[in-house]
Amino acid sequence: MTEQQTWSQRFESALHPAIARFNASITFDIELIEYDIRGSIAHAKMLAKTGIISPAEGEQLVEGLERILQEYRQGLFHPGIDAEDVHFAVERRLTELKGDVGKKLHTARSRNDQVGTDIRLYLRDQITQIRQQIREFQGVLLDLAAANIETLIPGYTHLQRAQPVSLAHHLLAYFEMLNRDWERLGEIYQRVNISPLGSGALAGTTFPIDRHYTAELLNFGGVYANSMDGVSDRDFAIEFVCAASLIMVHLSRMSEEVILWSSQEFGFITLKDSCATGSSIMPQKKNPDVPELVRGKSGRVFGHLQALLVLMKGLPLAYNKDLQDDKEALFDSVKTVKACLEAMTILWREGLEFRTERLAAAVNEDFSNATDVADYLAARGVPFREAYNLVGKVVKTCIAANKLLKDLTLEEWQALHPAFAADIYEAIAPKQVVAVRNSYGGTGFEQVRQAIQAARSRSKNS
Amino acid sequence: MTEQQTWSQRFESALHPAIARFNASITFDIELIEYDIRGSIAHAKMLAKTGIISPAEGEQLVEGLERILQEYRQGLFHPGIDAEDVHFAVERRLTELKGDVGKKLHTARSRNDQVGTDIRLYLRDQITQIRQQIREFQGVLLDLAAANIETLIPGYTHLQRAQPVSLAHHLLAYFEMLNRDWERLGEIYQRVNISPLGSGALAGTTFPIDRHYTAELLNFGGVYANSMDGVSDRDFAIEFVCAASLIMVHLSRMSEEVILWSSQEFGFITLKDSCATGSSIMPQKKNPDVPELVRGKSGRVFGHLQALLVLMKGLPLAYNKDLQDDKEALFDSVKTVKACLEAMTILWREGLEFRTERLAAAVNEDFSNATDVADYLAARGVPFREAYNLVGKVVKTCIAANKLLKDLTLEEWQALHPAFAADIYEAIAPKQVVAVRNSYGGTGFEQVRQAIQAARSRSKNS
Amino acid sequence: MTEQQTWSQRFESALHPAIARFNASITFDIELIEYDIRGSIAHAKMLAKTGIISPAEGEQLVEGLERILQEYRQGLFHPGIDAEDVHFAVERRLTELKGDVGKKLHTARSRNDQVGTDIRLYLRDQITQIRQQIREFQGVLLDLAAANIETLIPGYTHLQRAQPVSLAHHLLAYFEMLNRDWERLGEIYQRVNISPLGSGALAGTTFPIDRHYTAELLNFGGVYANSMDGVSDRDFAIEFVCAASLIMVHLSRMSEEVILWSSQEFGFITLKDSCATGSSIMPQKKNPDVPELVRGKSGRVFGHLQALLVLMKGLPLAYNKDLQDDKEALFDSVKTVKACLEAMTILWREGLEFRTERLAAAVNEDFSNATDVADYLAARGVPFREAYNLVGKVVKTCIAANKLLKDLTLEEWQALHPAFAADIYEAIAPKQVVAVRNSYGGTGFEQVRQAIQAARSRSKNS
Amino acid sequence: MTEQQTWSQRFESALHPAIARFNASITFDIELIEYDIRGSIAHAKMLAKTGIISPAEGEQLVEGLERILQEYRQGLFHPGIDAEDVHFAVERRLTELKGDVGKKLHTARSRNDQVGTDIRLYLRDQITQIRQQIREFQGVLLDLAAANIETLIPGYTHLQRAQPVSLAHHLLAYFEMLNRDWERLGEIYQRVNISPLGSGALAGTTFPIDRHYTAELLNFGGVYANSMDGVSDRDFAIEFVCAASLIMVHLSRMSEEVILWSSQEFGFITLKDSCATGSSIMPQKKNPDVPELVRGKSGRVFGHLQALLVLMKGLPLAYNKDLQDDKEALFDSVKTVKACLEAMTILWREGLEFRTERLAAAVNEDFSNATDVADYLAARGVPFREAYNLVGKVVKTCIAANKLLKDLTLEEWQALHPAFAADIYEAIAPKQVVAVRNSYGGTGFEQVRQAIQAARSRSKNS
Repeated sequence: MTEQQTWSQRFESALHPAIARFNASITFDIELIEYDIRGSIAHAKMLAKTGIISPAEGEQLVEGLERILQEYRQGLFHPGIDAEDVHFAVERRLTELKGDVGKKLHTARSRNDQVGTDIRLYLRDQITQIRQQIREFQGVLLDLAAANIETLIPGYTHLQRAQPVSLAHHLLAYFEMLNRDWERLGEIYQRVNISPLGSGALAGTTFPIDRHYTAELLNFGGVYANSMDGVSDRDFAIEFVCAASLIMVHLSRMSEEVILWSSQEFGFITLKDSCATGSSIMPQKKNPDVPELVRGKSGRVFGHLQALLVLMKGLPLAYNKDLQDDKEALFDSVKTVKACLEAMTILWREGLEFRTERLAAAVNEDFSNATDVADYLAARGVPFREAYNLVGKVVKTCIAANKLLKDLTLEEWQALHPAFAADIYEAIAPKQVVAVRNSYGGTGFEQVRQAIQAARSRSKNS
Repeated sequence: MTEQQTWSQRFESALHPAIARFNASITFDIELIEYDIRGSIAHAKMLAKTGIISPAEGEQLVEGLERILQEYRQGLFHPGIDAEDVHFAVERRLTELKGDVGKKLHTARSRNDQVGTDIRLYLRDQITQIRQQIREFQGVLLDLAAANIETLIPGYTHLQRAQPVSLAHHLLAYFEMLNRDWERLGEIYQRVNISPLGSGALAGTTFPIDRHYTAELLNFGGVYANSMDGVSDRDFAIEFVCAASLIMVHLSRMSEEVILWSSQEFGFITLKDSCATGSSIMPQKKNPDVPELVRGKSGRVFGHLQALLVLMKGLPLAYNKDLQDDKEALFDSVKTVKACLEAMTILWREGLEFRTERLAAAVNEDFSNATDVADYLAARGVPFREAYNLVGKVVKTCIAANKLLKDLTLEEWQALHPAFAADIYEAIAPKQVVAVRNSYGGTGFEQVRQAIQAARSRSKNS
Repeated sequence: MTEQQTWSQRFESALHPAIARFNASITFDIELIEYDIRGSIAHAKMLAKTGIISPAEGEQLVEGLERILQEYRQGLFHPGIDAEDVHFAVERRLTELKGDVGKKLHTARSRNDQVGTDIRLYLRDQITQIRQQIREFQGVLLDLAAANIETLIPGYTHLQRAQPVSLAHHLLAYFEMLNRDWERLGEIYQRVNISPLGSGALAGTTFPIDRHYTAELLNFGGVYANSMDGVSDRDFAIEFVCAASLIMVHLSRMSEEVILWSSQEFGFITLKDSCATGSSIMPQKKNPDVPELVRGKSGRVFGHLQALLVLMKGLPLAYNKDLQDDKEALFDSVKTVKACLEAMTILWREGLEFRTERLAAAVNEDFSNATDVADYLAARGVPFREAYNLVGKVVKTCIAANKLLKDLTLEEWQALHPAFAADIYEAIAPKQVVAVRNSYGGTGFEQVRQAIQAARSRSKNS
Repeated sequence: MTEQQTWSQRFESALHPAIARFNASITFDIELIEYDIRGSIAHAKMLAKTGIISPAEGEQLVEGLERILQEYRQGLFHPGIDAEDVHFAVERRLTELKGDVGKKLHTARSRNDQVGTDIRLYLRDQITQIRQQIREFQGVLLDLAAANIETLIPGYTHLQRAQPVSLAHHLLAYFEMLNRDWERLGEIYQRVNISPLGSGALAGTTFPIDRHYTAELLNFGGVYANSMDGVSDRDFAIEFVCAASLIMVHLSRMSEEVILWSSQEFGFITLKDSCATGSSIMPQKKNPDVPELVRGKSGRVFGHLQALLVLMKGLPLAYNKDLQDDKEALFDSVKTVKACLEAMTILWREGLEFRTERLAAAVNEDFSNATDVADYLAARGVPFREAYNLVGKVVKTCIAANKLLKDLTLEEWQALHPAFAADIYEAIAPKQVVAVRNSYGGTGFEQVRQAIQAARSRSKNS
């Protein structure tokens, strides 16, 4: 704060400089400047339309605000700590540019409804961008899936080989996660896209404003029905950061798999040089930095979610200064999710390559076809639990003898149970094992083909 | 684990008893038993319909399952730790009751899709109940609002008196918060209400099952499109606990206000004996335990949200045992939210009384009409920022002189600015100050009346 | 609440039954009963010693309290919801047993300092037990390390093979983590072990009590210096749950490795049947349930930590009812950590077996000796960064030629750099590679041998 | 990444620019540059001392590193994104300045142990600074306490008036909280102050380094006993952020009280203009922004704690790239705590004023002396629980009659119980009520006087 207090003459002395620094939000809320100016332009037009100010005054305000926007975009507008926040910074510059009329801009408005408007305009845009990023990432996954319908990969539960699956099927599971993210953000968008402008400090205003008009100018889908709620609601930010946390959960799961798959032990993928890094000391290393960082950053977004919940806990109505601390958590959540989606999209599009020969070998070397033996018997009338027990015994014997199921002779099979016939070998061949899981949503190739098609059409909307 | 391993004969020795205890979930997943049985009945009917088992077998299974449900409801079914989990407990009892046919129940199913089905059926019911509780609480608030449209209460920002408001307006802000909760839960319900049944262990099944039929029998709105996603998705639980956390944010805010208002310093409400408690040592005490506990319990639900996010972080596909730990967090979130909504509904319906004489006195004794003086001048052409500065000066002078604004003489007003006239007194009378904030969503009585009516009609749906 | 309010006659009507249920803590704080009684016995003795009550009265109180303890241990004492909390339950029973003298027990005491005493006595015991469990687990790890000094295992960074290490060295890293846990809990113990008894409701008491005497009877290390702090401090619980969270971090890291190692791809360990479980449907499965559950439960404890922090945020002095909600989070953290430590100790002692032939093969089949080639050159005067770059090139060539470093001929080595001599082969043999990392704290066998010895002596204290 | 990969020639193509941006940490780890250079100087000296490089080479490296430090301090050193991280940036500049010898700096070291060293040096300094800030704040509180021993203020439980206390006693409760913070940070410092330098990438090094020598040069208290633990341990960061969270809990509690006390309803303090802010629209407002922001920022630090716990969950040994994301959470926790401590110290030193006349009036107008009546009777032989019940009845009667206890006549007292005598009036006078709570740690003036003295001497150490 310099010579002049921005607030009322009720105050006798200036802020302690350390306190001014502590209170100031301009260092981060400058991020909102474009939204702040757009909101102010709408407000000025409304003031003129309703006769609260004259048409000429309205025009002057709009002109001045547009000029500040230009200045900012040209890098000519640099408000400092003494501006306290972006709202005062703009109002002050406006008054410098346009004189006393600038002082009329804040009629029938408070910073409380103003910042609420800014942040919703900001988040609305970000949600739209994130949804587009999700659609792009889904497209990359679908292309990869379409090219790998008959590529087999071990399917795991408990990180133990369970049943082989189509690689496309595995990728479609990711598609589904992302699709829920897309859908969820769409619903949250509706609750973000409500205008608090005109709520005033907390109680509305005595001026004959037209809230629906400013909402319309700013493309809001509606207006807050209650002014006290309008200035103190941050549900939308928390909902968004929860949705962002779920995106991070999904990305962290994909990341874990890329890390596993690129290990020497799994060896399912090769990382391209463009998306891997080395060691400062071990010359042979090629590290999956991208998925590791993405996995690590999940904690960051979960942390922001908690920060916002804690922030709001137990706050009495209406606005409290605590709310100022919502911005950095929100901004960083947005940036983190966008950066992670971008990096993962690049990684999956051009940064990794499936080693199909290794995958083919892998599914031939395990007991992940054991369920199919049990199903084989169950389909021939043996109660499932009995069949299951029998196969368990077979697997144990095979392990002891260092054999796989396919290595058993027909005699051996029939000694185990008379229901076995020569078709058991086909029944347990990996390709067949995958093909016959043709229940709806299963990994059977026919199902997967249909699922890809359906996914393509479901992800058309954006 | 007693004599018989429930899983395959692949195993030679029994579980270490401490490990069996550690792994067992029966102590808490017994909560799901009714849902487990309903899911199994649907599964059995489907097996029969599709010819996987015979119609007679299907009937026997259904009969047995219904009998177990009866036994449970009559308190006759008490599975212990050796049952490992509710699913095995039921299957085992079924085989005791019905013999070998019981061993066919698990055909074409895995515990992974089974528990996913159970938990969704459970949560679906809970969401419905919580939404009803919200509607009930909203009704209580609306009744109270309708009775208090012209009751004034100080409105605060920063816990400093800002502008007086209608008590009804204040209560309507709560209504709005709860309405978002209700709406949000409705959207989440759609994502909970999807059937994973038939996803098998992870890859679907080789049997000709009909997933849409079981979904229909269980009133699901759809089926999971991908089996690996179906068995490993817990988004719906996290989304729910986030929505539950927001409910707790809202309840904690209301709680904080009840605590403040019932303090001697505020004195805005009196707590009834039926909803307050005493001290073990200080005989005069009457404590607002309910809102304090509700406020405290917000942390508990936020903690569960974090627990679930951490649980899911970085898990490779598909099912992992970690997921077993989702239940207690989910169950306790449900119980906590339901208990808090119930307690708060009782508190607001019959546990507190507004001290209207105190409220009336309060709004007469402060400077919360200062904005109206600024607005008065602004409406007479003085730029808002100038008017605001002038009024700040007046307030400072009044405080020094230990006067309120209403105590100034007309001469004093006019000495401050010639635009003041005799109507300034009416303009700053609390009732008038509230009445004229008649902008949409504002506290003006006319607005509030309309808002209550609109709220009543919006909250009809349940 | 039944006929009689426990608190003062200030109240006219009874609690609403739903509110009584909501407020009651007896369902979980019964866990504290032994500590509550011990605390009351000390308080009674002090009242008699200081003459606040007569010696005879003191004896009667002690006698009655000991009897209640017996009743409880024999399963004869079952306080219900109407007892509200464990403190009232005991006081009431005491009065039943001993008549009016029972009503003197609460002289010079409040539930606020009483519950603070109980919970510290409880936590003190739990910390001692957990530290013993840590020592036991460390012992298991040290025994395993001692038996595996020259067993090699790939060492990883970024889950990429980095440099081979002694298996004992790897296990000693776990030892160190656990040792910090042990140490940290020891420090926290000091802050838990302070008596708040005698703080009264918040302000101390008018009676001539002797706080140091009760502290001494209860083996506390000191007394709270400020009564308002004494009744409202929960730092010790938060500190403990943070330490518990760190234990869970460590256990989750070990768990992740057990899960990886028991996968078919790694194949470094075999899980014993006594510590693994099967699938309900896939007969070949043997799942690492224990480490998965432990990993999953980390979220639970982190969640409790968050819950307690949220609970305390922004509470004004002194006691607030919110604090009642500290118990379940604390109790469950204790139980979870104890159960996980027990399960992991069993798992490492008898539940897994290292497949040494696989480990030996593994370290022979990779480029994790590449750093040693660079060090070889650097030791012969080539600047490290140059040597590193050269080796990077060699690795690339080898990969293309499907060779390992040991497969290069001496001519090939010398063509790369003249400094190479015949001793390069020994320098890159896995055993040698490990042996020469003999810097302090490194994996060199000599170092590891000393480290085990040092660890044994460091972990003697308990 | 520009023309030259920093890592090995194993790589054929450069990083994708978006991935390079995603991976780079230079934008935030530049904060560590001074520590990085100090660590490198120690490392270079050790390399020379042990003969790994020549003395001349050692001198050149030290000279170059000191020059870079100068350049940085003079604002002449601006590494960009292409430097990836601060470690490479410095190494690169060193090679520019000193030629090939610069390439020897990284001998026997890895970025993994290097960054671990940097971050510990950084945090060590920060802890020392924070502990000094705590001592300063404690000093302010003690001065205020010393001046207000006989100033009375209502003492609250459940935000209901409980018993009056000395304002100094209340402030001493804050002193105790801060003292635990100071003590806790001191213990954590010991675990931060351990050198991982020389752990290498994960396994130690083949060079004859002297880890104790570098530790000594850098004033570390010890060295990590295990290299794998040394490069992957982040316990110390989590411990610190937990301690920081507890500081924020304490500051948030003090903040809540300042907010309450500065409300019109409480009116216990006046905020000075230098530490309060106004409203953009309501000219009368004077808002307690500082404590509100501090309260809000508690969530931020709790969030960082969770972020770090999540980050570490389930990471296999040893270093993983996820760890890079520890820095921003740690740095922001440090900055937030320091800023909040500074702001609160200013606020309490010069930003608020107790309104002693209001406080004196307050303690005269309530029933917070009711316990003293019960104690009065109990001291005269009436069992406490009976006395308590009687006084409850009296309070109820008084409230109905709109009287306080002091308004009862001696006859009325004696009608209630014959034990009452004329000295009851003195017994319930606020000053007396406070004075007699003279149990150790209680609010009695004598106790408080001693407590202040003890606190002064306890807080001498820094």
